[in-house]
Amino acid sequence: MKLAILGPEGSFSEKAARQWNDKAELRYYDDILDTVDALLRKEVDFSIVPIENSLEGSITLTLDLLMEQQLSITGEVVVQVKHCLLSKGRLADIKILMSIPQALSQCKKYIKKNFRNIEVRSTLSTSQAAKLASESKEIAAIASRESARIYGLEILDENIQDMNENFTRFIVIGKTVPPPTGNDKTSLIVYLEKNRPGALYEILGEFANKGIDLTKIESRPTKKVLGDYLFYIDLKGHIEDKKIKDALGKVKGKVGMLKILGSYPAAE
Amino acid sequence: MKLAILGPEGSFSEKAARQWNDKAELRYYDDILDTVDALLRKEVDFSIVPIENSLEGSITLTLDLLMEQQLSITGEVVVQVKHCLLSKGRLADIKILMSIPQALSQCKKYIKKNFRNIEVRSTLSTSQAAKLASESKEIAAIASRESARIYGLEILDENIQDMNENFTRFIVIGKTVPPPTGNDKTSLIVYLEKNRPGALYEILGEFANKGIDLTKIESRPTKKVLGDYLFYIDLKGHIEDKKIKDALGKVKGKVGMLKILGSYPAAE
Repeated sequence: MKLAILGPEGSFSEKAARQWNDKAELRYYDDILDTVDALLRKEVDFSIVPIENSLEGSITLTLDLLMEQQLSITGEVVVQVKHCLLSKGRLADIKILMSIPQALSQCKKYIKKNFRNIEVRSTLSTSQAAKLASESKEIAAIASRESARIYGLEILDENIQDMNENFTRFIVIGKTVPPPTGNDKTSLIVYLEKNRPGALYEILGEFANKGIDLTKIESRPTKKVLGDYLFYIDLKGHIEDKKIKDALGKVKGKVGMLKILGSYPAAE
Repeated sequence: MKLAILGPEGSFSEKAARQWNDKAELRYYDDILDTVDALLRKEVDFSIVPIENSLEGSITLTLDLLMEQQLSITGEVVVQVKHCLLSKGRLADIKILMSIPQALSQCKKYIKKNFRNIEVRSTLSTSQAAKLASESKEIAAIASRESARIYGLEILDENIQDMNENFTRFIVIGKTVPPPTGNDKTSLIVYLEKNRPGALYEILGEFANKGIDLTKIESRPTKKVLGDYLFYIDLKGHIEDKKIKDALGKVKGKVGMLKILGSYPAAE
């Protein structure tokens, strides 16, 4: 089985992939778009991409791709993120600090405290930052412990994120709907008719009346007009459960659009 | 009146500030955090910061500051964003493309089509990118038309964002609650008790039952546990309106936390 992930080696995506299936053959891609494209181009059987972090919130590019492309969520994985400060040099040598915007943001207070006058640069992945740091003593990367090993860097500091509880949820994207396991989630996107007050309330009522538990609701712009939104909803249960099937049937008649992204075993 | 905005000169924040009050004395700051801090440190009377873009969605740093700090929203401004490609060199000279992450993302397709093998760098503002572009023919910036004038750059291309309808909403942060105008909005943050199914539905019911129109609902992580959210809600109406006061009174008894961010005249 071939699995597309955000590379290079040592990324948190690799950790997620190993956690989901430790026998899969991994293919590394440069960004989220390419990782998803690999599946659409049939280079791989599944793609794993980050969708949400407990400090940063949603990875909006992933949410937008779920709307734009014909993709099916077939699984999810939750990975604990521990950021390390990695470099070939010592603390005093560092002139440039690199990482992905999310990691820089998760370590905002640490950076502000320890690196007041440093140049901060964004990279496409934490492991790309580590790779660049291996080329100069003046560069430090915020990346995983695994990256230090792979790129021959020293771990100058550990667990440097502002909050200790830092988890990233990844989704597995594939072509099939896995059968119910008894502990599943269903993801969907709805577009309500604009300017109809109470529309969201009505939709949530269809779920609440059947005792269906929402684990997440998030809005994203439709990208047409300011103030016009799509709602991404995660429910507990499988699309084959009768009460979910019934509720979605009713919701369908009340919304401008309903896109079912898939049902899959819940993480943990 | 002193007004803090994201600088340097020529930024879209400056456009927002001029639109809101063209007589204010502007003070320029490096990032959103510093712009808000200026108000907390009493260096200015108001701060203007971006909160939402019609293509990109919310500026999550601004949302998080509204939760973390004691701030009051006293106004909003909507600005049309037209991105330009600016440089001192010609297209063939460009080796590095710079802008804020949001602008780079809004021009994603344009960049992918026209600059396949270029280095893309994030800056803190569009005008900072323009400033850097003025120092080398190899650098191009994605920034406003005004920036071209201020930094002496050529406009190589105009309106390069992926979608033509591109608007950014800014909020004005101050210390007072403006009186009702008849066309106001009220912003709040609620924290529901975790793991109580239907809690969001109940809260929305309090508003729906009184015919109060929600213009926005958005979730943000509490940053404590994955899957635990705050809800940011914008309503039509002023906190002094009886039906809003009544609804909020009922909501207060049903939620873990209710933070009222302010009532202010709606933009447009």
